[in-house]
Amino acid sequence: MKREDKDLAWMLQFENIAWYEDGRVDILDRRIYPIEVRKVSCHSHQEVAQAIKDMVTQSAGPYVACSMGMALAAYECKGRAEAEQIAYLEDAAYTISHARPTTTWRMQKICEACLAVAREALAAGALDVSETIKEFAIEQNNIRYKGIGEVGRYMAGLFPSKGAIMTQCFAETIVGMMLREARIQNKDIKIYCPETRPFFQGSRLTATVCHEMGFDTTVITDNMPGAVMKNEGIDLFTSAADVICCDGHVVNKVGTYQIAIAAQYHGIPYYVSGAPDQGHPTIDTVHIEMRNAGDVLEAMGTQTANPNVKGYYPAFDITPPELVTGVVTDQGVFDPYKLADYKAGPDDFLV
Amino acid sequence: MKREDKDLAWMLQFENIAWYEDGRVDILDRRIYPIEVRKVSCHSHQEVAQAIKDMVTQSAGPYVACSMGMALAAYECKGRAEAEQIAYLEDAAYTISHARPTTTWRMQKICEACLAVAREALAAGALDVSETIKEFAIEQNNIRYKGIGEVGRYMAGLFPSKGAIMTQCFAETIVGMMLREARIQNKDIKIYCPETRPFFQGSRLTATVCHEMGFDTTVITDNMPGAVMKNEGIDLFTSAADVICCDGHVVNKVGTYQIAIAAQYHGIPYYVSGAPDQGHPTIDTVHIEMRNAGDVLEAMGTQTANPNVKGYYPAFDITPPELVTGVVTDQGVFDPYKLADYKAGPDDFLV
Repeated sequence: MKREDKDLAWMLQFENIAWYEDGRVDILDRRIYPIEVRKVSCHSHQEVAQAIKDMVTQSAGPYVACSMGMALAAYECKGRAEAEQIAYLEDAAYTISHARPTTTWRMQKICEACLAVAREALAAGALDVSETIKEFAIEQNNIRYKGIGEVGRYMAGLFPSKGAIMTQCFAETIVGMMLREARIQNKDIKIYCPETRPFFQGSRLTATVCHEMGFDTTVITDNMPGAVMKNEGIDLFTSAADVICCDGHVVNKVGTYQIAIAAQYHGIPYYVSGAPDQGHPTIDTVHIEMRNAGDVLEAMGTQTANPNVKGYYPAFDITPPELVTGVVTDQGVFDPYKLADYKAGPDDFLV
Repeated sequence: MKREDKDLAWMLQFENIAWYEDGRVDILDRRIYPIEVRKVSCHSHQEVAQAIKDMVTQSAGPYVACSMGMALAAYECKGRAEAEQIAYLEDAAYTISHARPTTTWRMQKICEACLAVAREALAAGALDVSETIKEFAIEQNNIRYKGIGEVGRYMAGLFPSKGAIMTQCFAETIVGMMLREARIQNKDIKIYCPETRPFFQGSRLTATVCHEMGFDTTVITDNMPGAVMKNEGIDLFTSAADVICCDGHVVNKVGTYQIAIAAQYHGIPYYVSGAPDQGHPTIDTVHIEMRNAGDVLEAMGTQTANPNVKGYYPAFDITPPELVTGVVTDQGVFDPYKLADYKAGPDDFLV
């Protein structure tokens, strides 16, 4: 097994993201990984929703957790009358998909797809549809990975043959696939990862994937992207997105916006990866969730600020299309102002 | 005593910054303050130089530590022959002023002034000039504070009557004087302080001063200035500087540059405080010191990144004059392209 395949295999394994088994869902705790490998065990679908809300899992992780959470909900109501199980699962779908307001639309689509499969199996006489939903979750993920693989291939094609790129807080799947493609295409790139406060996903997660995929990886603090662009020369800035609106606005981890501004100032292209979100025709339908202000007043559990001051923590920021060079989708690279050209299909919400 | 006077008094007390007494210099450790109030005791001028190098003190602190370190050097060589003491003090001046490459010019000027005073006293027959240098250090500081008070007055005059400003990592003296003036001028302002990784000077020091001076103070992580400008509305961005070159380039804590870029993008003015540095006619004479790369891979002593990745830590970045709205000096506000109009005097290096 070649190194990149082994690493990719690791990243693609459900067991390492979120997994339903024996009446519980185990979710890898990305708030501490890779400093520690720790799992959060959820014994009810409400606990799965809480884990998503608490940012135990990130990147594509919440979507995997959604379908696995639906499998757990099915386990919770197994054996009851058909209508009762359906009502229970509808309620669970609502709870799980509303765990994070900014990505609710996408999580709803996933939960609804699980519900459709459950309804069919229940109508056919099944008493316990938990395994049915789990099987379906695996199928969904195969479709997701195929789409993301295409995105990665197009993105790597934009990298210089030799040079440096800057990322912003994106983990496992997309960054892994993108970098596997970059290796296949013999791209000799150095990668700069801003650390992404307050939870250090950039230094812990993104940087780990970049390093494990064999690239020269440098972590910088979040106040350095501008200086690095000026001093070191960056050829391309890239991030994933929590939402890409059909009007070209990009919603992603807070910090993306100001890096995109600095990139434009330096004449560096910014490419975002992912499919346009058919549930968000414009930015006006997106709700930016505010998180616990206290999180910015500490680091890895240690107080960093005067206890009398306030904190402010918007989880995401919005990058307008004027700062986006291109949206790299499974169908190729699109102008952010021309996302209507993207051919929307029934499984787009998985990419 | 009114609250602001008490707070200012605290900030202005030498004892709280760096102080020579009984053969040692005690320096407040700003790497941990105000989480803990801890002093670093230096028993030789070499230890003072090392403390400056290790960033024990910041803002105007290193300049105070310079002259107090010279007093300590005089204590070390007291009683020796005049020529021997002078040679010893010259050597100490070199060691102390070269502790930090980016601010060497200014520290040389301070040490040279101490040397001149020492030479005069030694020529007049003194055997121990340590107290003479200490007295002179206090005089120097009075001149510094008078100049900085003027800077603060001009800066506060630029604040809106009611609104919000953003700072970047500057502590005690200038921010304290600026905010005292803002209160005198009845400015109703809310202050946003980026935390300033890796050492959190923004959240620990700047935010503490802002809070103690009675202003509504909010700490944000370093990836949020752009989002805050967009979401909350910022009227003015301001910072101090380690060097203001006569050609209008500003050298300050890393992060200043990208906040200035974001400010320009949002149409927000950026005013830097301080006098143009006559030792640096252009940016070409400035050496940006690189610090320990490992510092960006941890936070408050806790590892934050994968142990296999690299770090990168330029202490400062360079903001070009095109991003600077005005340089706020003790002589008023100057266009960054017209700093030749500033009337350079013999004590400018103290401001």
